[in-house]
Amino acid sequence: MHIDKKDIASHNDKYIKQHHKNFEYLSSTLEDEGLSVKKIVKELVDYQVAIPSWALSTGGTRFGRFPGEGEPVTFEQKLDDIGLLHAINASSGAVSMHIPWDIPKEPKKVKKQAEELGIKFDAVNSNTFQDQPDQKHSYKFGSLCHTDKSVRKQAVEHNIEVIEVGKIVGSKSLTVWLADGSGFPGQQHFAKSFDRTLDSLKDIYKHLPDDWMMFTEHKPFEPAFYSSVVQDWGSSLLLANKLGKKAACLVDLGHHLPNANIEQIVSRLIQEDKLGGFHFNDSKYSDDDLTVGSLRPYQLFLIFNELVEGAGKDLSKTDWGWMIDAAHNIKDPLEDLLQSVEAIKIAYAQAMLVDRKALEKAQEANDAVRAQEILQHAYRTDVRPLLAEARILAGAAIQPISYYRDANCRKNLINERK
Amino acid sequence: MHIDKKDIASHNDKYIKQHHKNFEYLSSTLEDEGLSVKKIVKELVDYQVAIPSWALSTGGTRFGRFPGEGEPVTFEQKLDDIGLLHAINASSGAVSMHIPWDIPKEPKKVKKQAEELGIKFDAVNSNTFQDQPDQKHSYKFGSLCHTDKSVRKQAVEHNIEVIEVGKIVGSKSLTVWLADGSGFPGQQHFAKSFDRTLDSLKDIYKHLPDDWMMFTEHKPFEPAFYSSVVQDWGSSLLLANKLGKKAACLVDLGHHLPNANIEQIVSRLIQEDKLGGFHFNDSKYSDDDLTVGSLRPYQLFLIFNELVEGAGKDLSKTDWGWMIDAAHNIKDPLEDLLQSVEAIKIAYAQAMLVDRKALEKAQEANDAVRAQEILQHAYRTDVRPLLAEARILAGAAIQPISYYRDANCRKNLINERK
Amino acid sequence: MHIDKKDIASHNDKYIKQHHKNFEYLSSTLEDEGLSVKKIVKELVDYQVAIPSWALSTGGTRFGRFPGEGEPVTFEQKLDDIGLLHAINASSGAVSMHIPWDIPKEPKKVKKQAEELGIKFDAVNSNTFQDQPDQKHSYKFGSLCHTDKSVRKQAVEHNIEVIEVGKIVGSKSLTVWLADGSGFPGQQHFAKSFDRTLDSLKDIYKHLPDDWMMFTEHKPFEPAFYSSVVQDWGSSLLLANKLGKKAACLVDLGHHLPNANIEQIVSRLIQEDKLGGFHFNDSKYSDDDLTVGSLRPYQLFLIFNELVEGAGKDLSKTDWGWMIDAAHNIKDPLEDLLQSVEAIKIAYAQAMLVDRKALEKAQEANDAVRAQEILQHAYRTDVRPLLAEARILAGAAIQPISYYRDANCRKNLINERK
Amino acid sequence: MHIDKKDIASHNDKYIKQHHKNFEYLSSTLEDEGLSVKKIVKELVDYQVAIPSWALSTGGTRFGRFPGEGEPVTFEQKLDDIGLLHAINASSGAVSMHIPWDIPKEPKKVKKQAEELGIKFDAVNSNTFQDQPDQKHSYKFGSLCHTDKSVRKQAVEHNIEVIEVGKIVGSKSLTVWLADGSGFPGQQHFAKSFDRTLDSLKDIYKHLPDDWMMFTEHKPFEPAFYSSVVQDWGSSLLLANKLGKKAACLVDLGHHLPNANIEQIVSRLIQEDKLGGFHFNDSKYSDDDLTVGSLRPYQLFLIFNELVEGAGKDLSKTDWGWMIDAAHNIKDPLEDLLQSVEAIKIAYAQAMLVDRKALEKAQEANDAVRAQEILQHAYRTDVRPLLAEARILAGAAIQPISYYRDANCRKNLINERK
Repeated sequence: MHIDKKDIASHNDKYIKQHHKNFEYLSSTLEDEGLSVKKIVKELVDYQVAIPSWALSTGGTRFGRFPGEGEPVTFEQKLDDIGLLHAINASSGAVSMHIPWDIPKEPKKVKKQAEELGIKFDAVNSNTFQDQPDQKHSYKFGSLCHTDKSVRKQAVEHNIEVIEVGKIVGSKSLTVWLADGSGFPGQQHFAKSFDRTLDSLKDIYKHLPDDWMMFTEHKPFEPAFYSSVVQDWGSSLLLANKLGKKAACLVDLGHHLPNANIEQIVSRLIQEDKLGGFHFNDSKYSDDDLTVGSLRPYQLFLIFNELVEGAGKDLSKTDWGWMIDAAHNIKDPLEDLLQSVEAIKIAYAQAMLVDRKALEKAQEANDAVRAQEILQHAYRTDVRPLLAEARILAGAAIQPISYYRDANCRKNLINERK
Repeated sequence: MHIDKKDIASHNDKYIKQHHKNFEYLSSTLEDEGLSVKKIVKELVDYQVAIPSWALSTGGTRFGRFPGEGEPVTFEQKLDDIGLLHAINASSGAVSMHIPWDIPKEPKKVKKQAEELGIKFDAVNSNTFQDQPDQKHSYKFGSLCHTDKSVRKQAVEHNIEVIEVGKIVGSKSLTVWLADGSGFPGQQHFAKSFDRTLDSLKDIYKHLPDDWMMFTEHKPFEPAFYSSVVQDWGSSLLLANKLGKKAACLVDLGHHLPNANIEQIVSRLIQEDKLGGFHFNDSKYSDDDLTVGSLRPYQLFLIFNELVEGAGKDLSKTDWGWMIDAAHNIKDPLEDLLQSVEAIKIAYAQAMLVDRKALEKAQEANDAVRAQEILQHAYRTDVRPLLAEARILAGAAIQPISYYRDANCRKNLINERK
Repeated sequence: MHIDKKDIASHNDKYIKQHHKNFEYLSSTLEDEGLSVKKIVKELVDYQVAIPSWALSTGGTRFGRFPGEGEPVTFEQKLDDIGLLHAINASSGAVSMHIPWDIPKEPKKVKKQAEELGIKFDAVNSNTFQDQPDQKHSYKFGSLCHTDKSVRKQAVEHNIEVIEVGKIVGSKSLTVWLADGSGFPGQQHFAKSFDRTLDSLKDIYKHLPDDWMMFTEHKPFEPAFYSSVVQDWGSSLLLANKLGKKAACLVDLGHHLPNANIEQIVSRLIQEDKLGGFHFNDSKYSDDDLTVGSLRPYQLFLIFNELVEGAGKDLSKTDWGWMIDAAHNIKDPLEDLLQSVEAIKIAYAQAMLVDRKALEKAQEANDAVRAQEILQHAYRTDVRPLLAEARILAGAAIQPISYYRDANCRKNLINERK
Repeated sequence: MHIDKKDIASHNDKYIKQHHKNFEYLSSTLEDEGLSVKKIVKELVDYQVAIPSWALSTGGTRFGRFPGEGEPVTFEQKLDDIGLLHAINASSGAVSMHIPWDIPKEPKKVKKQAEELGIKFDAVNSNTFQDQPDQKHSYKFGSLCHTDKSVRKQAVEHNIEVIEVGKIVGSKSLTVWLADGSGFPGQQHFAKSFDRTLDSLKDIYKHLPDDWMMFTEHKPFEPAFYSSVVQDWGSSLLLANKLGKKAACLVDLGHHLPNANIEQIVSRLIQEDKLGGFHFNDSKYSDDDLTVGSLRPYQLFLIFNELVEGAGKDLSKTDWGWMIDAAHNIKDPLEDLLQSVEAIKIAYAQAMLVDRKALEKAQEANDAVRAQEILQHAYRTDVRPLLAEARILAGAAIQPISYYRDANCRKNLINERK
């Protein structure tokens, strides 16, 4: 489905008056506080969030899956869906591929398609958490950590193949998430499986181009229910340090034990110069993979507060990776993604409002009351007009979800694809 | 310390122009959405949150306590502190007494003092979680649940005494939080200790005046580290049902296992007509007793969303109890309370903005995306001008924390009390 | 695969000498403590644990499934597998059917097969957590709680059909586990969805034969990631109470928030006369569905301690249901089940060793040290010889896992079925 | 109170016959399995667990404390209590001092007293989690991490003083547990507070004698309820690595987020050669500081399984530190400690029974069933006769708790000290 710029324009016509009122009020308020609204809006235009190819279809749980209609099947269709999102919100200008599913048959054509849609190629993702039909060895008992050398070799080669695919399309990073671990005490030798994993990663690392990054991603459990090899940021950092400069840690917001202080982990990784990027999602209980910002928006803000503080520059200028990793079980995946991107940018906008000089002063004085006032003043500000303004400047829709629904996007996709 | 109305007025002069701008913008936006701003502000004026007498001093942990200065010692001083808060925010017009510490020597004088400060007497709280110097039997192994009849009798009599104190000052409810439980498997017979607790509560219930309520409060752990007798809302509801119409369940936001869906529990208690009231606070890990809204403001909003939905009328018109129960370990307790009250009223104001008809429609259509849009639209709205307007109408300060600091309240208290 | 009694006998010949030594030592020790070993062994012979039909195949996670070989496809094959287990351990003499998958084409034949294998029909399980190919309405947004009456009707009728199947084979109970819930705040009206669920359950309850029980099963999350309709024992008990005498609560060990005191919940349900039965499994993080006793064997013992205490008679004489509900992702399902049954019976045997009079005395005296000594004395006792003795008496194998492996059971099943 | 060897002997006379029966049975069984019972018993004689001086009195919670009687006040009395324990169980031959409380007035005398009681001086513990009466600067907002240089300096000097005390008595390690952290988002700059902590630790490290170790101890929360500076093993390892060879990580079993896989963390620290030692306790919910082994004995076994595997030699020969850190709120502290030491040594004994060759083989074959059988065979073995035998050999009591009670130890202490 192709979005006509005119449709966006006519959608915006409906909301522009109200938007001007909102934006003017907010601008004048923020300028009074000494903030440069222009600079903030500019950064909101530049800041892009990658969409993984697997997030465009309805997800599921081990108990079942309730598919929606009009979902993309080929990688080209997935690119089209991201193009649709990007046309609507001008904030989703990157795709993260999942290999083997997304291997393009005609890479040149795909690159051209992406270029036309304004979409870049973000990190490529290897997959050793399930077996493929034609696979020689099974990953039932692990991949890079496996006791059997030939299984490890197969998994290493898969990762190298993923790099090759990435090189063709112009990706610059590889994300390695490992399902490897054990289901029961005693099943796996903790130290040996960690060593084997490191050795396998080193083999992959050797094949990493000089201008690439390798992201190690931790997760405490699921699908391994007793131990995961890379269970937390501590283990992930050990790996990244042992691998070298081109390795860094990726933080998935759902991959933590209950109550973990994620923003502190983010700060510590920045301090060690080993933050690689993010998999954004939200959760209440576990790795629920819900819409970003749907459960803990304040935590998201606090994470962006650390990012802004730690980066010392606009986030769009850093080399950190930004991606959504959610499972859209009961929402239309595209609507879910529009909501997620909106929540991420709201949190970022709020973090840009924080009065850092005043905060530093409060911190030096151990003034917890004042520090909270400063953070919550930013958080309580309704920043949505800033996002809308950025979208207008970028030729996108003032109200993404409304546009998507009014333009019958899903219905069109169903018609096109059935 | 007495707050002069003139000081408030001159404080407000400084902020009134900015406030008018903010309020006018917000009012016109909300009225456009079909909301009655007048009605909302009126309710924000009426809605009061009780302050427990123990929240006026610095709290502590088992590792130590770092007291502040100028803290109240006598109950009269505690009343004065609440009067100070109420003069500043016009939202803290009730006190919750803790017996035996707050037994007034001259009840009439105290009643008069409270009246002059505009403070009502909320629930009275019994205490059987620690021993008093002159106490015959120890509560080391429980109070209302104790295996020894004479200990139970002592605890019952204490609760009756608390009711008597409450009757004198004009309170209408008794909150029973029990530290009773066990530290180790086998220590306590689960069924017998529950039966004994119920029997003891029945004895207290007999002495409850007809127009009073008894609140049972659950907590999973601390100070009992293996089992608590009233460990969750299920047990609390069992007790309240077995006691009768004058018993209901009190929900402390920090008294739940990790990740509990508290708003659903609130809804269920309302449905069973057994919601009694709240102890507000916030937490990240456990019963941390932090400033309300400092960690999970969205959860607080979702709770108020259920309250507004379940009440079917203004919350100030219900007979539910509203109280802060926090421990101010590192903040000035009065500043902490000002922040807590503000956070509570922000959540309530946001909940009043929810378009309930649209929400009901979305729910009937299983439209999770739309339902989220509706809730988050309300939540993302910056409602602070509504609270400020309510405070102005009630003769209180536009910026409570700023007022408190500018007027050197803490310094004055230190001077007065040292 | 059919197990020849002679094979068992020759297996036992290998271990009998060592067993006699172990059993004699343990018997004399326990008799010295005043216990009747004969009575305990007798009860271990009688106590049977049901196997659900879905536990005979390799399970999976949302990330994939690594199937094993020789797994049963038809219900008849599933019965055969349970027959195999029962021949080996003489403790798995019941099957729990899952409808629609297990609807027998020739019920009479199936009944006869079960009879020959010594297998009874335990609770029948309805399924509304995933859609069947021929299904008219989808359960994507719930079943018994659905906003659409026709979906609820379909789910009710499915449950009635399940009862009908159960009546044919001789089952006496229906287990209703609901995946119903919501993924996001606002999506579902808590009160209305609970009411609709209750109404649906009442419709099913009407069709329940007089000598049947209906078990309501709670679960805090998964697959619903924001709220479940029957999220905890409090809600389950509300439903069971509102339904009537034939309704009771089923406890799945993995369906609790982190750190919940499950043994206390069990005690409370017994006290309210609403304990229905168990789904046994183990877990470290969430509803991991691991082998029973593989992570928290002491918790399992404490649960059995409450059961023995609360029952006041041998557990095999109660009407409580006993079933394993685990997902065997990386173990041979049959070996996993043998380990699970062993762990359950070990916990039960240990609980029978507890000196209840001494424990009661310690509890009355609040002697936590003594209470712990009493419980841990029982727990630390190596009771495996009691189980082995019971198996010998029942004609089963002294070492079930060894027998299963030595007899090449899996290999035989693979040969038979491929 | 002094324990007469004769009293122990006459106590043992009562139990020796039963013991011989138990020990002979177990010995012959274990020898049949190819184990050297002599070697195991020898190691159980050698393996000692240190007692911290603060564990000899009744602990408390923030809700109160219910003191017992006959508790030690002076350090000399505390030493006497440990001497009493050691006389009874011959396994508590070390004391861990808490400064400033335990600064001995006459160090020589104290050393002599300890020598006579057979007690060594384990790690010395600094304390900056509460203020002392004569202290210049407050630790309300941190110690080694404080924004104010003079506070940090004071805290550093305190730690140096602790080293000096340790040098006098013959201690060889310093444990630094920091309560430092923050209560609210924004209060503390994560990176700066970590840097300041590291700098302070470096200052202390400079004063550490060459043959000493410094242990950094992590904890996620309490008393800091939003963030702790050293929140997990990842941060602790960072510090230990940056400090140098004499720094290592101490693991307190209660200092982890819910469901953390502690045994894996232990393995990883061993692998990085940075395991320092342990603070043993048990818990169900949080840092409950309960009797070791009272809630999760299997987890304790799994930890010892990693220790035995990782050490490659008898644990008594390693330089890892072993200490109990529990709070005895409702038990007689000495009885609690006797139970804790027993539980630790049971777990260790079980871990020594594990057939490591068979386990390695099962691990290489990814045979989770077999691995579990191997571990649980060891765990299910009743090893108590091994501990009793070790105690007999060391001149201690067969039944420590019974001895303590029969000898009226607490009553004697009360009489002596009142």
